[in-house]
Amino acid sequence: MTDARLSPVLDKIDADLPDALDRLMTLLRIQSISTDPAYKESCDSAADWLVSDLESIGFDASKRPTPGHPMVVGHGGEGDGPHVTFYGHYDVQPVDPVDLWNTPPFEPVLEDTAEHGQVIRGRGASDDKGQLMTFVEACRAWKAVHGSLPTKISFFFEGEEESGSPSLIPFMEENAEELKSDLVLICDTGMVAPGVPSIASQLRGMLKDEFTITGPRIDLHSGHYGGPGLNPLREIARIIASFHDDTGRVAVDGFYEGVHEVSAEQKAQWEGCGFDEKAYLEGVGYTQPHGEAGYTTLEQQWARPTLEVNGLWGGYMGAGTKTVIPSKAHCKITCRLVGDMDPDKLREKIRKHVEDRLSPDATVTWDQDLDGSPAAVMNTSRPEFEAARKALTDEWDREAVFVGMGGSIPIAGFFKEILGMDAMLIGFANEDDQIHSPNEKYNVESFHKGIRSWARVLAELSD
Amino acid sequence: MTDARLSPVLDKIDADLPDALDRLMTLLRIQSISTDPAYKESCDSAADWLVSDLESIGFDASKRPTPGHPMVVGHGGEGDGPHVTFYGHYDVQPVDPVDLWNTPPFEPVLEDTAEHGQVIRGRGASDDKGQLMTFVEACRAWKAVHGSLPTKISFFFEGEEESGSPSLIPFMEENAEELKSDLVLICDTGMVAPGVPSIASQLRGMLKDEFTITGPRIDLHSGHYGGPGLNPLREIARIIASFHDDTGRVAVDGFYEGVHEVSAEQKAQWEGCGFDEKAYLEGVGYTQPHGEAGYTTLEQQWARPTLEVNGLWGGYMGAGTKTVIPSKAHCKITCRLVGDMDPDKLREKIRKHVEDRLSPDATVTWDQDLDGSPAAVMNTSRPEFEAARKALTDEWDREAVFVGMGGSIPIAGFFKEILGMDAMLIGFANEDDQIHSPNEKYNVESFHKGIRSWARVLAELSD
Repeated sequence: MTDARLSPVLDKIDADLPDALDRLMTLLRIQSISTDPAYKESCDSAADWLVSDLESIGFDASKRPTPGHPMVVGHGGEGDGPHVTFYGHYDVQPVDPVDLWNTPPFEPVLEDTAEHGQVIRGRGASDDKGQLMTFVEACRAWKAVHGSLPTKISFFFEGEEESGSPSLIPFMEENAEELKSDLVLICDTGMVAPGVPSIASQLRGMLKDEFTITGPRIDLHSGHYGGPGLNPLREIARIIASFHDDTGRVAVDGFYEGVHEVSAEQKAQWEGCGFDEKAYLEGVGYTQPHGEAGYTTLEQQWARPTLEVNGLWGGYMGAGTKTVIPSKAHCKITCRLVGDMDPDKLREKIRKHVEDRLSPDATVTWDQDLDGSPAAVMNTSRPEFEAARKALTDEWDREAVFVGMGGSIPIAGFFKEILGMDAMLIGFANEDDQIHSPNEKYNVESFHKGIRSWARVLAELSD
Repeated sequence: MTDARLSPVLDKIDADLPDALDRLMTLLRIQSISTDPAYKESCDSAADWLVSDLESIGFDASKRPTPGHPMVVGHGGEGDGPHVTFYGHYDVQPVDPVDLWNTPPFEPVLEDTAEHGQVIRGRGASDDKGQLMTFVEACRAWKAVHGSLPTKISFFFEGEEESGSPSLIPFMEENAEELKSDLVLICDTGMVAPGVPSIASQLRGMLKDEFTITGPRIDLHSGHYGGPGLNPLREIARIIASFHDDTGRVAVDGFYEGVHEVSAEQKAQWEGCGFDEKAYLEGVGYTQPHGEAGYTTLEQQWARPTLEVNGLWGGYMGAGTKTVIPSKAHCKITCRLVGDMDPDKLREKIRKHVEDRLSPDATVTWDQDLDGSPAAVMNTSRPEFEAARKALTDEWDREAVFVGMGGSIPIAGFFKEILGMDAMLIGFANEDDQIHSPNEKYNVESFHKGIRSWARVLAELSD
């Protein structure tokens, strides 16, 4: 029965691709950078646009206020299949350094490339506007062809994913009854290799922190005070250097508590998943992996925790020279967590590590106090995973694989924790999409086959 | 004989103080900021004013063009004493942040203060217009009283000291014969403690450099690449941390080549020089010195070399979080040199230190290539130093001291190198003059007793 229902939907998707791309372009033009308060209105506009678009398909959609950027919730469809909720985020990363963009980040373009055919270029093209629209477009096509949806479908979009989702947990708690369904579908991940459909079986968790080290009370002259002066830039460098040992292992006491070694079976699966280590490394200018000695590149990326510095600054950063010993030095860090690592405990361990290493007269302040998210392992024994595996294999003509993910999608954990729901993460991004970087893109193939993939998944789920 | 010649000059200086302050005010009103091309005409006006003022005393003075701001050269006097050249600079630092000034920076005022009595407030009051006018006024008074100067005196003023003196060396080379004399006098330094007349016996040299470490070719996502990814922020932190060992000693191979230990005699002198270590440290929030273990605060400041980080930056520095592994990390450093340290050799040692410690796949570029200046040790065995010591002791009623200087005044080295002349640096600035900062001031006591000091020095030199 599936084929008869599905084929005209796939045809409709093919025919409507130009319109679907136009809609995505419209959404990409909205400068919904969630981390910067200057873009608050743009975030609001993106939410409005999504409400209106869902309504145009027939969903009962609404913008829901939060203390931060609004949520978008929509409901529609019915049927005997599982009630699924599709989650995505309409906010995007900041665009700096903006001078490295070849086209303005919020003026998306279709670009012909030798390697990928046509791509959509612009901030959010892949993360996550392009990805979230694959599911929306699949629903639109299904509804257009059949006049109804194949199963009960809800939407849940947030606008704070790139800033740590501060409103998400309270919103879930306050709207638990409305938000509960059988399974959450998330399209915010990538394919392990070009053309290899991938279902995430584990995600790393995340912990963010930021600190400032103060040395002297005021900026000092490096002649008058160079020598006796405590330099917070040297102080922060020394402390950052102490985060890792010579083998790349994190040297924070107790850091690896809750980390489990990868099983031999898991290793074997990953070895056959199509991951192109050479392309992954060489694509960014590496000749070798630089993580913990003794682990493969994929293990370093999917199964090992990290402590990274994402920003570091202090002193004079302009042209020429200023002979200053600055008063303050700043650092932003994130950790990726695996297994049963506890973000709250880990934060304390890291803070203690820093505080224990301060020189006399140096002080540290902690400038963020954000919730962390633990790692997530998916319940791949659920029948929906087998259904999705089949749907993806059909669409991409290549066996779909279960893969780990180096990134963090805390939302998966929150759905489980607060709403008791399992999550299934399927995404069509490519490693070279340059998400979070200048010149972000999304392959039109990802967009097009992504929409078709979701149509097939809906068909399988409702079969 | 000295007394008979000197007393009426000192009386004249006392009587003329209001007029001398008026003249200084006029010079301070000229906005001669050398670093900003917008003030080019003002720099020219300051040079004109100085020519005219020297001519009014009877010097044969002229403004001399350079590719940058003009020099002022003047000659006058004769006698059996040494031919001395007085060096000063008429340019001043920029005034921003201008909103932190309590009075407009170029509208100088006389202000009564509880701590210092009357002060002259305005940009350049101390650095260096107020200081250079102390010598000019001493000459004026001498000439007024005696109708002639006590010895042969030349003036050499530049207008680019605050922007690195780019025209100085070529001008010296082209005018070597004219500029050569027996000794250069420089009034651009401070007193080691309020009321303690100080002659600089050594200045630290300076080396500036700047480097960028590149890890990945582009900014990376810390989820997708965290682990295998080489992070240039960690790389630069590790390298900066490697610059010093645990005792505060610079760990760059060969760094201390040419550094000499302070003699017991020198140490004893410094211990008695009136330096208030507690005020120096506590004023900026320190409970202890933070330089090399085993050296006193003054030794760390005057006699030990440093390698300082003046600026450090990379990755995301805005509000909130960006989960990025950046492509690049940047660092500005300066070294203060002592003894016979060779800036060119030192630059190579530091660059080698960095290059030797780079991880595979990391690269470094060097972003500045500026000349360094070696340290300068004054030839204090010359009889002029003893003469000056006596003159200053008489004026200030406090034993004059030979002190080191933590800062760098490359001009002293250039006089030696290019013209073969020794320099004697005597200055009357106080630690709290706020040079280079808002609300710069010069104590009227410094100005007045500074003029009297130079008159005494001239008397001693020509005796």
